[in-house]
Amino acid sequence: MAGSAFGKLLTMTTWGESHGAAVGVVVDGCPAGLRLCPEDIQAYLDRRKPGQSRFTTKRGESDTVEILSGVFEGKTEGTPISLLVRNQDQRSRDYSAIAEVYRPGHADYTFDMKYGFRDYRGGGRSSGRETIGRVAAGAVAAKILHELGITVRAYTTQIGTVKVSPERFDLAECEKNSLYMPDAIAAKEAEALLEERMKECDSAGGVIECVISNLPAGLGDPVFDKFNANLAKAICSIGAVKGFEIGDGILAAEAAGSENNDVFRVKDGKIVKETNHAGGILGGMTDGSDVVFRAYFKPTPSIARLQQTVNKAGEETEIEIKGRHDPVIVPRAVVVVETMAAFLAADMLLSGMSARMDNIRRFYGQD
Amino acid sequence: MAGSAFGKLLTMTTWGESHGAAVGVVVDGCPAGLRLCPEDIQAYLDRRKPGQSRFTTKRGESDTVEILSGVFEGKTEGTPISLLVRNQDQRSRDYSAIAEVYRPGHADYTFDMKYGFRDYRGGGRSSGRETIGRVAAGAVAAKILHELGITVRAYTTQIGTVKVSPERFDLAECEKNSLYMPDAIAAKEAEALLEERMKECDSAGGVIECVISNLPAGLGDPVFDKFNANLAKAICSIGAVKGFEIGDGILAAEAAGSENNDVFRVKDGKIVKETNHAGGILGGMTDGSDVVFRAYFKPTPSIARLQQTVNKAGEETEIEIKGRHDPVIVPRAVVVVETMAAFLAADMLLSGMSARMDNIRRFYGQD
Amino acid sequence: MAGSAFGKLLTMTTWGESHGAAVGVVVDGCPAGLRLCPEDIQAYLDRRKPGQSRFTTKRGESDTVEILSGVFEGKTEGTPISLLVRNQDQRSRDYSAIAEVYRPGHADYTFDMKYGFRDYRGGGRSSGRETIGRVAAGAVAAKILHELGITVRAYTTQIGTVKVSPERFDLAECEKNSLYMPDAIAAKEAEALLEERMKECDSAGGVIECVISNLPAGLGDPVFDKFNANLAKAICSIGAVKGFEIGDGILAAEAAGSENNDVFRVKDGKIVKETNHAGGILGGMTDGSDVVFRAYFKPTPSIARLQQTVNKAGEETEIEIKGRHDPVIVPRAVVVVETMAAFLAADMLLSGMSARMDNIRRFYGQD
Amino acid sequence: MAGSAFGKLLTMTTWGESHGAAVGVVVDGCPAGLRLCPEDIQAYLDRRKPGQSRFTTKRGESDTVEILSGVFEGKTEGTPISLLVRNQDQRSRDYSAIAEVYRPGHADYTFDMKYGFRDYRGGGRSSGRETIGRVAAGAVAAKILHELGITVRAYTTQIGTVKVSPERFDLAECEKNSLYMPDAIAAKEAEALLEERMKECDSAGGVIECVISNLPAGLGDPVFDKFNANLAKAICSIGAVKGFEIGDGILAAEAAGSENNDVFRVKDGKIVKETNHAGGILGGMTDGSDVVFRAYFKPTPSIARLQQTVNKAGEETEIEIKGRHDPVIVPRAVVVVETMAAFLAADMLLSGMSARMDNIRRFYGQD
Repeated sequence: MAGSAFGKLLTMTTWGESHGAAVGVVVDGCPAGLRLCPEDIQAYLDRRKPGQSRFTTKRGESDTVEILSGVFEGKTEGTPISLLVRNQDQRSRDYSAIAEVYRPGHADYTFDMKYGFRDYRGGGRSSGRETIGRVAAGAVAAKILHELGITVRAYTTQIGTVKVSPERFDLAECEKNSLYMPDAIAAKEAEALLEERMKECDSAGGVIECVISNLPAGLGDPVFDKFNANLAKAICSIGAVKGFEIGDGILAAEAAGSENNDVFRVKDGKIVKETNHAGGILGGMTDGSDVVFRAYFKPTPSIARLQQTVNKAGEETEIEIKGRHDPVIVPRAVVVVETMAAFLAADMLLSGMSARMDNIRRFYGQD
Repeated sequence: MAGSAFGKLLTMTTWGESHGAAVGVVVDGCPAGLRLCPEDIQAYLDRRKPGQSRFTTKRGESDTVEILSGVFEGKTEGTPISLLVRNQDQRSRDYSAIAEVYRPGHADYTFDMKYGFRDYRGGGRSSGRETIGRVAAGAVAAKILHELGITVRAYTTQIGTVKVSPERFDLAECEKNSLYMPDAIAAKEAEALLEERMKECDSAGGVIECVISNLPAGLGDPVFDKFNANLAKAICSIGAVKGFEIGDGILAAEAAGSENNDVFRVKDGKIVKETNHAGGILGGMTDGSDVVFRAYFKPTPSIARLQQTVNKAGEETEIEIKGRHDPVIVPRAVVVVETMAAFLAADMLLSGMSARMDNIRRFYGQD
Repeated sequence: MAGSAFGKLLTMTTWGESHGAAVGVVVDGCPAGLRLCPEDIQAYLDRRKPGQSRFTTKRGESDTVEILSGVFEGKTEGTPISLLVRNQDQRSRDYSAIAEVYRPGHADYTFDMKYGFRDYRGGGRSSGRETIGRVAAGAVAAKILHELGITVRAYTTQIGTVKVSPERFDLAECEKNSLYMPDAIAAKEAEALLEERMKECDSAGGVIECVISNLPAGLGDPVFDKFNANLAKAICSIGAVKGFEIGDGILAAEAAGSENNDVFRVKDGKIVKETNHAGGILGGMTDGSDVVFRAYFKPTPSIARLQQTVNKAGEETEIEIKGRHDPVIVPRAVVVVETMAAFLAADMLLSGMSARMDNIRRFYGQD
Repeated sequence: MAGSAFGKLLTMTTWGESHGAAVGVVVDGCPAGLRLCPEDIQAYLDRRKPGQSRFTTKRGESDTVEILSGVFEGKTEGTPISLLVRNQDQRSRDYSAIAEVYRPGHADYTFDMKYGFRDYRGGGRSSGRETIGRVAAGAVAAKILHELGITVRAYTTQIGTVKVSPERFDLAECEKNSLYMPDAIAAKEAEALLEERMKECDSAGGVIECVISNLPAGLGDPVFDKFNANLAKAICSIGAVKGFEIGDGILAAEAAGSENNDVFRVKDGKIVKETNHAGGILGGMTDGSDVVFRAYFKPTPSIARLQQTVNKAGEETEIEIKGRHDPVIVPRAVVVVETMAAFLAADMLLSGMSARMDNIRRFYGQD
């Protein structure tokens, strides 16, 4: 497949530039008979919508989703679900500055190298608006998971150098601050840090943690299609992600085997792990514990100060990026991480059905 | 595709269990006319062979590769290249202990959950021997890269808590110590740490860094098939990898945008970046700088001390894993990381040929 | 990939039900820099539009295409091209008859078996309107081919029992009759046959032939991805196609080897074949001659006479399909066959670029 | 995927040249827990083995299969199954004649065009030996089908101009003649025709029919992945196939809708079709009737008479193909058609499990 599709049995194909007519996604392979209405999707899109706090851009977009196909009488038909969001805020600006100049930290230069030219109005295909398709598709996947009792929850654990404290960790706090941090004090500190960066015409990165709960054991394949390998691709395909880890992640490199191994126990007649250093994955397959992973985001490259750079003609020049930009993209990326994880999990659940001959015999009624 | 294949235009399909007759790989999509002989591949396999230092298992395997197809008169034919390595050390041991018991940190439990039973002789499909196919396939890819002037180089930057010092960094040192560390002093300290862990019947993890040099700008796609996203999948699909980062990676989350952005400059008439915080990727596409990434490995789960666990019947029990195991897998994984990166890079180079209409017209002689 | 996508490097993902809001397609992997405007696509859509002769349904659709993404300043950007056609004629009818009853020759029963329910308003996803996405995508592919000097031409060679005469074969006639037959006399006879069938509340099938000219030799792969195998899938995926043949096709089964082999000759310094029994394919790869193939269509299953059938409850019943239906779909399918062939050919051209190491070296400037 | 792989959830990747060391296949995605031994596969390979009648080549090959991976304690493990057959008859012949000259009807010319050179020892990758991998993989698939009560049966219905008579059709006859024809008299006539062709240093083609019985209704997808479209690809990817039809196939083009429609009836409480003009497929999905299709094979291109042709240097020349060749490949292709159909059917059965939300809920225990 060309590079705008993701998934194996459940697939999404996203399309759209930030300043074109619309952005959207086609979800294919969604099982038939799932209750689905625009509100199911809109709820997720609203979480990534701009203009919700002083740390997010004010671009005036309602981001209203339209279901164009695949749903009949309130249920998915098993056919492709086409979802569309019109771009509203496409007023013609003067793009001559960025049309000819490569913004540092952006895809301008690489786009020109790959394709020979680029859509210089905003980020084009590399804009954050590209994630609308992902979030809409992931909302459909989340609905599938919901029917199976599986939950996915993402939140911010770090903004710049400010980290959530494990002692104060409280998921209920996420909804109370604009940064989706499960720690009221850290959120306050992070907001102060952002105010400071904004004053300095600068920006910040951060970390998002995500937990998938109630997955059955045995999802994922032992070699290339490890659950965690596909998850790594899903997450690292989000713009601005520079690092991915699962379970103890990078800290596992320092640990001793005796510390890192999770001991199996029997609890209420079920096999469970006493700890979860592995982050819910053993040998690439889910082990029944929570899948826990983190994504590391770089700071927003668009900063309002003068930067050295080069233009298309290959001459050194300067650029000052005008307009308001998010000083940090992490809060709006929380729902993107969550929906990408949901999508991957749903796809893996579908693939997992054909792993065993006994299940197949039972399914087709020969047992 | 089922989960044992990797790649898009250049693909590898690996197969084989640690104690079956053989392990191997089929490389499909390799361009015709590439000079290839068994020695090209053997050189890479020898780097991952067991028994090369006191830190690696003594399993007596020569791991001699046989080219079964796809090469004629010393050149690739464009047809699938089938590579096979016989398993020699398959003496029948007493596996009754691990047959019924789930080793902590291993895939035993998840295999049983997914497939209903498992090959309990050694790691089966989840054994480190699975990487033989990857390394053999990657050696073919490395040959393609070599013809294009592209190099891939991996080395160890951390063992347990011992890290390579940037000041002492010297690639020439890698060949002089058994851990492939580019720092003689760190290597000594790491060896001491490993001796200690072995004495304690324990194990260590570590970090491998890899650099791909001389890639053209513009490889990779802007959305799901970002160069770094596919690389993340390639690397995280290696057993024991728990974290992946590119460029400044996890540290980028703490940096300010003004620090993290790489300034473009003109040098000798070419557009270059003054720094490389991005690790050679902007917007998912290569930017002409070195692609620099790191893989974080967990400690070997097989440790020689008594561990609590559970058996197949769902009863709590204890296990003591017999036999000699690598106290650290990082040194032998260096070539695995390197060849997976080479394979991905070669695949991306093939895909990149059809991105522009002007190139296509030129290729087919209409321009 | 789920079942609504087609292609390898150049892909299309179609979506939409006949009585939903819209139908459309996402074309991914289209090379950047191709001149493309809505008229390029509209010209093809107009050829399949209903209501153009007395043999096609009068559904009032303008089928106006909208390009939602992937084109900037009149050129493709290399990003996904989203094409949308609104359904206009969705007036609410009384579908209660067909909602509960399985129409013979239609997908009603199989849809219910697969998905548990179906969109009973018209054909839903199995409607002929599904081909709008194919035609729109194929129009983009045809533009690529055009730039490479490659042409694709389809026409009707049989309607019911009336066949085009080889002696009278004249492509210029196609535009002069409503059946796209390259034989004025056969067209007249076919029209008479159709009038007869309509009077009898019956329908007809037919045959479409298609010729792809100027393809370079060596496209397609020798095993599963033979040019003809992928073409067979492309064509047999069109609703109502029951047979596919290439070159002499089914007649080759009767021929002797000495008759069927095409002799190679040298003409103007070029290697050519004296005959083309093979239909332009040897060993799955194009041989530089015209690719010639035929698709066999069944008669329209919707006929206005009373038919025996069964309802959802599993009771025998009768059905009389109301409304006007095409007595033959072949004339409108001509452009569908042509565009599917164009799409496949364009995809194969992109894949073919990476088959040889010498070309790759040249492409990346190492030669 | 590169062109040597087939299938979606159940995949096969074949490899090997006719005069290399071996040929083989990797089957991935086979469900775990299927009883499988070499004899299961050998039985199918023996049916395509050379030297079984005076109409097949005498190449001395035992074609003994070795299972190298994926089977443990007599059951599939869910991991890739690697199957290998050594080439025995590789004695060095004088290939200088065909090395430089393009045999009419063969892939020699197209191979050189695509890859720049070719393995001129026998057919290389385009040899009939390539089908060993297909048959071995299909034998595994047939075992899966067997457990689900599904059967696949292929036989010869035409050799040259000699056709099986519907009145004398008797499957039991297939095993009694060397051509696998279900009609003793036609078989005799066909043998006479072949004797004649051999005397004339000529060859014959023919037709193979195949029936898949007991498939559940609802397999296949409504658009590109129609059961019949994927089947068309599977069958047309077999060397020498020039035509494919399903159900009434090419004759459907002549029929009236009222004749071609299959009437639904209720029989023993089950919905059935009174006739099966459709060949078991409606709208791309299985309808519960037998899937019936036919493959049309061209005559063997290797004939022992002098033929005009061209050499690599682009000069006209003559060729006389030495050695004994099958005067007809149809009898040996019967098992190839049968196993390709089995493979496709098994793959479709696995994919079909995730089509409905109610089934998914039931599978994962939420219902």
